[in-house]
Amino acid sequence: MAVALCEVGPRDGLQNEPEVLAPALRAELANRMARTGVPRVEAASFVNPERVPQMAGAEDVLAAVQPSPTLSRAALVLNERGYQRLRETSCEEVHIAFCVTETFNRRNQGHSVAESLAQAGAIVADAHEDGRRATVTLAASFGCPFEGAVDPAIVLGLAEQLTTADEIVFADTIGVGVPRQVRALLGGARHLGTPLGLHLHNTRNTGYANAYTALDEGVALLDASVGGIGGCPFAPRATGNIATEDLLYLLDHEGVDTGVDLDEVIRVAEWLETVLGRQLPGQLYRAGSFPPALS
Amino acid sequence: MAVALCEVGPRDGLQNEPEVLAPALRAELANRMARTGVPRVEAASFVNPERVPQMAGAEDVLAAVQPSPTLSRAALVLNERGYQRLRETSCEEVHIAFCVTETFNRRNQGHSVAESLAQAGAIVADAHEDGRRATVTLAASFGCPFEGAVDPAIVLGLAEQLTTADEIVFADTIGVGVPRQVRALLGGARHLGTPLGLHLHNTRNTGYANAYTALDEGVALLDASVGGIGGCPFAPRATGNIATEDLLYLLDHEGVDTGVDLDEVIRVAEWLETVLGRQLPGQLYRAGSFPPALS
Repeated sequence: MAVALCEVGPRDGLQNEPEVLAPALRAELANRMARTGVPRVEAASFVNPERVPQMAGAEDVLAAVQPSPTLSRAALVLNERGYQRLRETSCEEVHIAFCVTETFNRRNQGHSVAESLAQAGAIVADAHEDGRRATVTLAASFGCPFEGAVDPAIVLGLAEQLTTADEIVFADTIGVGVPRQVRALLGGARHLGTPLGLHLHNTRNTGYANAYTALDEGVALLDASVGGIGGCPFAPRATGNIATEDLLYLLDHEGVDTGVDLDEVIRVAEWLETVLGRQLPGQLYRAGSFPPALS
Repeated sequence: MAVALCEVGPRDGLQNEPEVLAPALRAELANRMARTGVPRVEAASFVNPERVPQMAGAEDVLAAVQPSPTLSRAALVLNERGYQRLRETSCEEVHIAFCVTETFNRRNQGHSVAESLAQAGAIVADAHEDGRRATVTLAASFGCPFEGAVDPAIVLGLAEQLTTADEIVFADTIGVGVPRQVRALLGGARHLGTPLGLHLHNTRNTGYANAYTALDEGVALLDASVGGIGGCPFAPRATGNIATEDLLYLLDHEGVDTGVDLDEVIRVAEWLETVLGRQLPGQLYRAGSFPPALS
């Protein structure tokens, strides 16, 4: 079994840091993670720097992430304006995100869900015309900080209209999901034929159980951030993504192939701890790795 | 589906605290957890107080834990001497633990594995004669801090010789296990007919994925500690147990019945944070609960 990892530390991780890191340092994080063998890095976000100063200078970040035949450099956009900026860069992949609930999407994107859905479809078409991969992420697919519980049928209804994307990613933006929901979403969208991914936060300690369940449901892509940094500046109480190295320990020991070097990721987490000057949420880089069970 | 929870905070949790809590306070933790509906509480440990001062006064703790028809008050013993002390108390259940690897067991118990196995069988017999339930916990079943990886066949060979116990519990003492091992141990011991349990630590963020997998394998009993406190003073780098409230959030949302009130457990975690004067490893009591997904 194999699954692709997408490192989102330079984007979803750093966008929630109190300190604004310079583009060169954000690119260094992306480059260090690329060297561990991670096939994709979400390195930047084309959002309004007045709203998210941590993501200012996306063009400079992407220009400093080294291209490689084994790496897809990705960036996030929330709308057409963002994609027009991304278009001027050499990055290979666009990630388009919007929220599945009206309240959260209005606050986060300033649009109705239907408007964001139409916009996502248009950006996918543009990206394909430009020869770029395009992934659509459905934020708050497992629960909304403003509207509460979310019906998987609503999420699946949106997914059905996004099959032109190269992947559809269900995001547990505020870390409330459980395996039952993973099965409902991945199982319910399987017939679409579009590869599916998950973006998980570990806010309530369910992130790794969800990732494990996703393997069973044939997930193609898992987002994670080195050291487990992250969150969402506009989602109250959202904490970090699942940590790339903790996820990788689980995957390695379960015999799932990712092509990523766990020891190297641990070293990036150790480096990142010194950069951010505080203990990170990931646990493996502090506890140390351990050999798999004999059998 | 239903599973029994055993609260081990007053024992495995507090035995690793730098500060020694008075027996009355340890009993208060046990009583508070009993009131949440937890059917079992491991309230004390009959070990040498010179080795583990945090557990001194086990008799006083047990005397202060209120008996109830819906509660089984348990205490840990490592040998016959410990059981002779427990025998003088009114507690309903004995937990006997030893390590599956020679090095760890010598350091922790001062005996060979074969000696501890024989002793465990003898204590089970004594307990049954006394009208007490007896659970045997196999420590380091998922990996040993001194010998490294552990062969599940070794663990299963020991389990086969412990079928007189009311339950056999496989302990991931140092938090290295993954779901594959849960399946190997629970699946491999199922034919014994003895109810099986797991004692999990979340040191490498695999604890909740392991608990979730255990449900699928028909686990009867899960240990957890409120706030996720815990560790082992003699196992280097071992950190906390899975948190009772985080586990309960997962179980509740998966539709697994435990009879325990999640909101009440969160309140105990909040209280315990004030008692210990520091943030606890559990995440749910800080993030807050969330309603289950609509469907």
